[in-house]
Amino acid sequence: MASDLKEAGGLTRLFVTAALEPGATVILDEGQTHFLLHVLRGRAGDRVLLFNGRDGEWRAEVATTSKRGVALTLLSRCAPQTGVPDLWLIFAPVKKTPSDYLAQKATELGVSKLQPVFTRRTIVSRINDERLKANAVEAAEQSGRMTVPEIGAGMALDKLIAQWPQERPLYFCDEGGDVLPLAEAARGAVTDKAAILTGPEGGFDPVERAMLRAQPFVTPVGLGPRILRADTAALAAVTLWQSVKGDWR
Amino acid sequence: MASDLKEAGGLTRLFVTAALEPGATVILDEGQTHFLLHVLRGRAGDRVLLFNGRDGEWRAEVATTSKRGVALTLLSRCAPQTGVPDLWLIFAPVKKTPSDYLAQKATELGVSKLQPVFTRRTIVSRINDERLKANAVEAAEQSGRMTVPEIGAGMALDKLIAQWPQERPLYFCDEGGDVLPLAEAARGAVTDKAAILTGPEGGFDPVERAMLRAQPFVTPVGLGPRILRADTAALAAVTLWQSVKGDWR
Repeated sequence: MASDLKEAGGLTRLFVTAALEPGATVILDEGQTHFLLHVLRGRAGDRVLLFNGRDGEWRAEVATTSKRGVALTLLSRCAPQTGVPDLWLIFAPVKKTPSDYLAQKATELGVSKLQPVFTRRTIVSRINDERLKANAVEAAEQSGRMTVPEIGAGMALDKLIAQWPQERPLYFCDEGGDVLPLAEAARGAVTDKAAILTGPEGGFDPVERAMLRAQPFVTPVGLGPRILRADTAALAAVTLWQSVKGDWR
Repeated sequence: MASDLKEAGGLTRLFVTAALEPGATVILDEGQTHFLLHVLRGRAGDRVLLFNGRDGEWRAEVATTSKRGVALTLLSRCAPQTGVPDLWLIFAPVKKTPSDYLAQKATELGVSKLQPVFTRRTIVSRINDERLKANAVEAAEQSGRMTVPEIGAGMALDKLIAQWPQERPLYFCDEGGDVLPLAEAARGAVTDKAAILTGPEGGFDPVERAMLRAQPFVTPVGLGPRILRADTAALAAVTLWQSVKGDWR
């Protein structure tokens, strides 16, 4: 008997790139086909939700199942397209598991862009873009987001700052010196777009800190009296900004 | 040559249970001895920091190294004893890795107590207290805390609520219905002690939600428009409370 395919959080949601419109057919990719057939044990007639970041959320029904790709027929749109606040998270990539965790949690918390940055003390020398994207897609599917965050190409800190869009405030989570609590700094902002910058394990180098503090768009901010791991700091900062300026109000 | 033993975050800190006082000798346990000798490659004369949750932070020097237990001589106290805000995190245990993360991150963020609770939809049927404690100790050492959070014995939700200390507000992270944003609810609190309750994957059962909402000390609160995983919700809630009522102000 055909049924709604479900996971812990409710009806299964899948992110696809195809256009979603009445009567359209969407073919799932290899990974999604495997997931639908072998993890969820889906069959013809079963229903899931689809979104593509542009056309809202659609109810769709499995039309044909083949190992080459499950085909779904769109039934009806069940929710309009919505976005998330315009918040970028700029982070120094950490080891594999914390990076997975960071991409997943930041997506749930609602960032619009994940931007890896390489600093002097960043130990990880390259970032696995595909893995970052896969974590973001999975978190978008499970959190009910209608978009997947943009993933910026990894970039050196100096270069990122040199080409910074000046009108976007950059909150720099600084471990030392004079800082405002992040929530207080965010309350004083005059725009609803922002970026948060968190460092690698061991923090920023003194030269980097001085360079950042010299920028007119940078505000050094603090996250309480304890030393937070890089991934904890990033998630706490996103949470506070969402509460003050984002869509958690 | 004797030196300061360091990790990424700075001078190595170790949590011990012995009293810390001038001239005292402290013997490290088996795990710490292994860590000091084989991971940090410590030798006689090397220095670390010790804390025990009562006597502040002390500088100590390795006196003798033996596989049975490294002995340290206390040099001087370098920081007074401090506490954290009186915030309990009550959480339904999730799978192993997310539970490790949750204990680690909540300790860094500064909770005073970690309390596992079993709900109708909690899949994990028992909690590994030792593992929870080990994660909390490690996070306390690395975050600069002077205390390790208390670990409550796992308890059924009904029992926990039946014996609740009525004067402590309980913020219940509720996925449905009328809720206040957590930051707003916390701003209205008249005491500086509190507890946050987050559910298992799949949330609380309707009967549990009704029971919780009927308690005079419970305030249902929300964490934005997206569906957060259980561990993400717990950490976001702790962050917001610290920012409004805790020691991040």
